[in-house]
Amino acid sequence: MDLKEKIRIIEDFPIEGISFKDITTLLQDKEAFKYAVDSMAEYFRDKGIDVVVGPEARGFILGAPLAYAIGAGFVPVRKKGKLPYDTMSMSYDLEYGSDDLEIHADAIKKGQRVAIIDDLLATGGTIESVIKLIESAGGEIDSVGFLIELTELKGRDRISGYDVVSLLQYKV
Amino acid sequence: MDLKEKIRIIEDFPIEGISFKDITTLLQDKEAFKYAVDSMAEYFRDKGIDVVVGPEARGFILGAPLAYAIGAGFVPVRKKGKLPYDTMSMSYDLEYGSDDLEIHADAIKKGQRVAIIDDLLATGGTIESVIKLIESAGGEIDSVGFLIELTELKGRDRISGYDVVSLLQYKV
Repeated sequence: MDLKEKIRIIEDFPIEGISFKDITTLLQDKEAFKYAVDSMAEYFRDKGIDVVVGPEARGFILGAPLAYAIGAGFVPVRKKGKLPYDTMSMSYDLEYGSDDLEIHADAIKKGQRVAIIDDLLATGGTIESVIKLIESAGGEIDSVGFLIELTELKGRDRISGYDVVSLLQYKV
Repeated sequence: MDLKEKIRIIEDFPIEGISFKDITTLLQDKEAFKYAVDSMAEYFRDKGIDVVVGPEARGFILGAPLAYAIGAGFVPVRKKGKLPYDTMSMSYDLEYGSDDLEIHADAIKKGQRVAIIDDLLATGGTIESVIKLIESAGGEIDSVGFLIELTELKGRDRISGYDVVSLLQYKV
């Protein structure tokens, strides 16, 4: 199945000049959604992954079914103030200023094998913060997976040293 | 498996007097997460569900794996301004004032059978808005499922006329 046919491109969203990759058209298509999760699962299965970590909010939509498909737990990384228990936090850069990502301090046990999943790898700033957060929490990152990678933004270089996989590649 | 043992109760979060049900301890436990999704799937399978709808953000964590497990598509309901394409919106009440929930206008085809999934049924205000949104979009609601129901808040009465199921019940 050519999953790119299921992605809707929206020009100038959220700001002028951005060619936004809308994955909702893929998600709502039952065959395409199953195919995407199964393709991810094929890569991550048999790697002994204990938990899949997904950042809020689109990382939940792909990370949680992947966790289910490979028999792992799911750990959400959330924006500041959303998690109810003791948290660890890591700042990440926004266009202007920065914000914090949080994870429950007891979400990952020391030495657990972790896969990080998000919808999109662009410049890699968010995922770099998620990686630092997981490692601070004692997790061992097995691999990092994305539905879409924007190759010309070279996010992959920012997280070199990690095993990175993406299902679909676009230049920008 | 007694899933209640996997839920962490946090008193006075997010405000004094609330006994918050933290589901992250369940999600991160691979056996408990699988058991919860499978238990939901058992109820929703064989009902001819075309799409599972989950509201941002915890509804994504349960709705997406359920959709995958029963072979349905997944449609996110999001907070205002997050969806990139043409949307329909419905306001919902907050403690002070209101906010809007949105769905892509073309997310649901007329007559599609829909299951709505969220983590928690409390007073039912949010889910009532989600129901209205789905019906405005032309979807036929088969059933509404929750991981947790706070029975004394009587959210179920607010959405009577719909088939409502919850895995775990607490008084408040």
